[in-house]
Amino acid sequence: MTDIRTPAVIVNFKAYTQVDGEAALRMAGACAAVAEETGVCIAACPPMAELGSVARSVDVPVLSQHADARKPGSATGWVTPSMVAASGASGTLLNHSEHRMVLSEIKEAVSMCRDAGLATVVCSDSAASSGAVAFYSPDFVAVEPPELIGGDVSVTSASPELVSDAVDAVRSVDEGVTVLCGAGVKTGDDVRAALDLGAGGVLLASGVVKHDDPAQALRDLVSRI
Amino acid sequence: MTDIRTPAVIVNFKAYTQVDGEAALRMAGACAAVAEETGVCIAACPPMAELGSVARSVDVPVLSQHADARKPGSATGWVTPSMVAASGASGTLLNHSEHRMVLSEIKEAVSMCRDAGLATVVCSDSAASSGAVAFYSPDFVAVEPPELIGGDVSVTSASPELVSDAVDAVRSVDEGVTVLCGAGVKTGDDVRAALDLGAGGVLLASGVVKHDDPAQALRDLVSRI
Amino acid sequence: MTDIRTPAVIVNFKAYTQVDGEAALRMAGACAAVAEETGVCIAACPPMAELGSVARSVDVPVLSQHADARKPGSATGWVTPSMVAASGASGTLLNHSEHRMVLSEIKEAVSMCRDAGLATVVCSDSAASSGAVAFYSPDFVAVEPPELIGGDVSVTSASPELVSDAVDAVRSVDEGVTVLCGAGVKTGDDVRAALDLGAGGVLLASGVVKHDDPAQALRDLVSRI
Amino acid sequence: MTDIRTPAVIVNFKAYTQVDGEAALRMAGACAAVAEETGVCIAACPPMAELGSVARSVDVPVLSQHADARKPGSATGWVTPSMVAASGASGTLLNHSEHRMVLSEIKEAVSMCRDAGLATVVCSDSAASSGAVAFYSPDFVAVEPPELIGGDVSVTSASPELVSDAVDAVRSVDEGVTVLCGAGVKTGDDVRAALDLGAGGVLLASGVVKHDDPAQALRDLVSRI
Repeated sequence: MTDIRTPAVIVNFKAYTQVDGEAALRMAGACAAVAEETGVCIAACPPMAELGSVARSVDVPVLSQHADARKPGSATGWVTPSMVAASGASGTLLNHSEHRMVLSEIKEAVSMCRDAGLATVVCSDSAASSGAVAFYSPDFVAVEPPELIGGDVSVTSASPELVSDAVDAVRSVDEGVTVLCGAGVKTGDDVRAALDLGAGGVLLASGVVKHDDPAQALRDLVSRI
Repeated sequence: MTDIRTPAVIVNFKAYTQVDGEAALRMAGACAAVAEETGVCIAACPPMAELGSVARSVDVPVLSQHADARKPGSATGWVTPSMVAASGASGTLLNHSEHRMVLSEIKEAVSMCRDAGLATVVCSDSAASSGAVAFYSPDFVAVEPPELIGGDVSVTSASPELVSDAVDAVRSVDEGVTVLCGAGVKTGDDVRAALDLGAGGVLLASGVVKHDDPAQALRDLVSRI
Repeated sequence: MTDIRTPAVIVNFKAYTQVDGEAALRMAGACAAVAEETGVCIAACPPMAELGSVARSVDVPVLSQHADARKPGSATGWVTPSMVAASGASGTLLNHSEHRMVLSEIKEAVSMCRDAGLATVVCSDSAASSGAVAFYSPDFVAVEPPELIGGDVSVTSASPELVSDAVDAVRSVDEGVTVLCGAGVKTGDDVRAALDLGAGGVLLASGVVKHDDPAQALRDLVSRI
Repeated sequence: MTDIRTPAVIVNFKAYTQVDGEAALRMAGACAAVAEETGVCIAACPPMAELGSVARSVDVPVLSQHADARKPGSATGWVTPSMVAASGASGTLLNHSEHRMVLSEIKEAVSMCRDAGLATVVCSDSAASSGAVAFYSPDFVAVEPPELIGGDVSVTSASPELVSDAVDAVRSVDEGVTVLCGAGVKTGDDVRAALDLGAGGVLLASGVVKHDDPAQALRDLVSRI
């Protein structure tokens, strides 16, 4: 289990077939190799089925893509914070735009994760929602406008004010929460722009996962940090 | 990936802390050891985070505890049939009483699993629901009255007619679907009774997972098959 | 409260702005007028907010568009079978393709509605799902392939075998359950075709609700019964 | 449609059998009578099935118990903001602890309600959640600790600091949002305490709805305003 340092590049593998099964281990290996080579913190979010296998195989922070606010025990098929911690992962995404959570469950999941020693990255769709979830004091808030996710235009180009507004909203609530941004992030310039707007890093997926040469994509992403 | 043979004993690890993280590998190892020793098919359902790590480490059928009817790709935090297959698992539970599914998603998930080469075990709460889901032609229907799950009285003692009614209902719809039963199953006598009532095996959890000596519990369970 | 007689034409007002607020009363009045004029059973499913106002104002069967399997009491914002019955409605749709339900909730809701004296119309997306829900012995199963809902081609033209297969599947489980069909139904010929395929009536929405002259649309629909 | 004035007493009828069907009209009539008699704003939240019938029959603000963030049209069984407005209601509760909403749907529902001319009362379970939802600028935030709802001890006695913390959290985000409080509120002293703690009113249910003489219960509640 490895802590997330900022600036951080968090790679969400989603459920892409390029990175499921043992391919998740190779993709996480690429993250680890570039992290070691460049000294930048690169975190990996493997598919749910590979969380433990990846978490125990690489020396970078590994995050679950989701956790349910459920206690251990009779929770067939759910992903408990306790289970995530036992897998060796360092933390979890929560409330991703593809996996939206009920408000009170976000609150409870952040709390349960904190108790389990897990870092939390709560995703949000706007500056307002970023400020909202900051009230639960997660470690990170990752703002991603849903309409830009998976697209070719970076949030830092399309909506730079969204990122700085999210930073302002979060800081007005809790100075200890770091803002990340995502959606359309693909290049070192995008990452540089995010940091210049006050973000502590980026959350991205297709720009790395669907790239022909993920390691090279990662090198480019961290090149201007 | 190993096929499920009948009579089958399927062990659901749920989200018990006794069997998360690397302990899931040890529990699956116990299943494999007793399966080899006795020749009985014992399948393991590890926690979601350990599906891949377990599936690639043991020579018994490994099942996911759940699968979502979602395509690969943008499905952050969900468990796609495609991902389950890539992990090396042989199949999946669906609609467990702790993870109930929308009717149309059961239909779609069974279909997607079949296309992915996965065996399906659809759980049901009654004879009527067993007949209902048989219309989707899963490989197995596992009937478990929710009020007995996790308890000390086996469904085969408390409600033997539930098991035989489920067998009748399922056969009236599709002769090719095998009925399993569960809830409170703990001993070899319970398993014997299930088979005598027409079931092709059992689905159980706490009787093995929370047992001081899981291998011994498994040996007892298969002793009268 | 009025019983549903077959052949039945059930008009789902959905959440169309043409029939919300007091307009729901006028639309239900048109149903009642044509029902009286022609002697055919025409049932009305007003928007949730107008269930009581409509149910107490017209002399045709009025159905809720949905009911939750919830007991009376602490169920803020939910639609309990008890509340539906108290409103004067005759029954309810369940599991509409726009409001899919968890399998075990369909079972429980049918049971609770029966206890409350409500007729149940469980919607399904296929012949297989029609057979499945017949296991719960609702009064009606309404089969509607989702891809045809709201379109211009009637299910009776596009998939006549779907309707007859649904009738066969339902009858194989419970002879006492009547099949309705829907999706794209707009004309008297469509209704006639449905009856000829073994259905006991139709469930439709836009063909009446969005028609310039709903009463005239209804007259045409019942013209060949 | 009548605006909510502060101090406000909002009566949630929930799904109690005492106030469903035509009894909802009588209960709303009691609210209206005491409101007229005392000059205090008393708002009524009837069961979903009676929203329109109540909203068009009384001269007090009538609120829906819930609204879904759904557009008009193909939304069978859902409660759209558009439908609520057409019913004659003045606004709606959102995210009640018995009807929790996904964070992004709270945001969208508040926005859709504003566009439809509806007042919004977003419920929250804590001071932190109160601050969180204030970022969406609803008209009201109603803080109710779930463990006290339906009980005999008022939130103003059990957790006065919860109310004042919620007021502080909400004001730090948006001065224009009024805080209400609820859970266990039953007497005029409870209401007085709420106002003294900075709340603009109360949200309550069983204290009125299950009272033998609801009008008398209301008179007591408003006696110290």
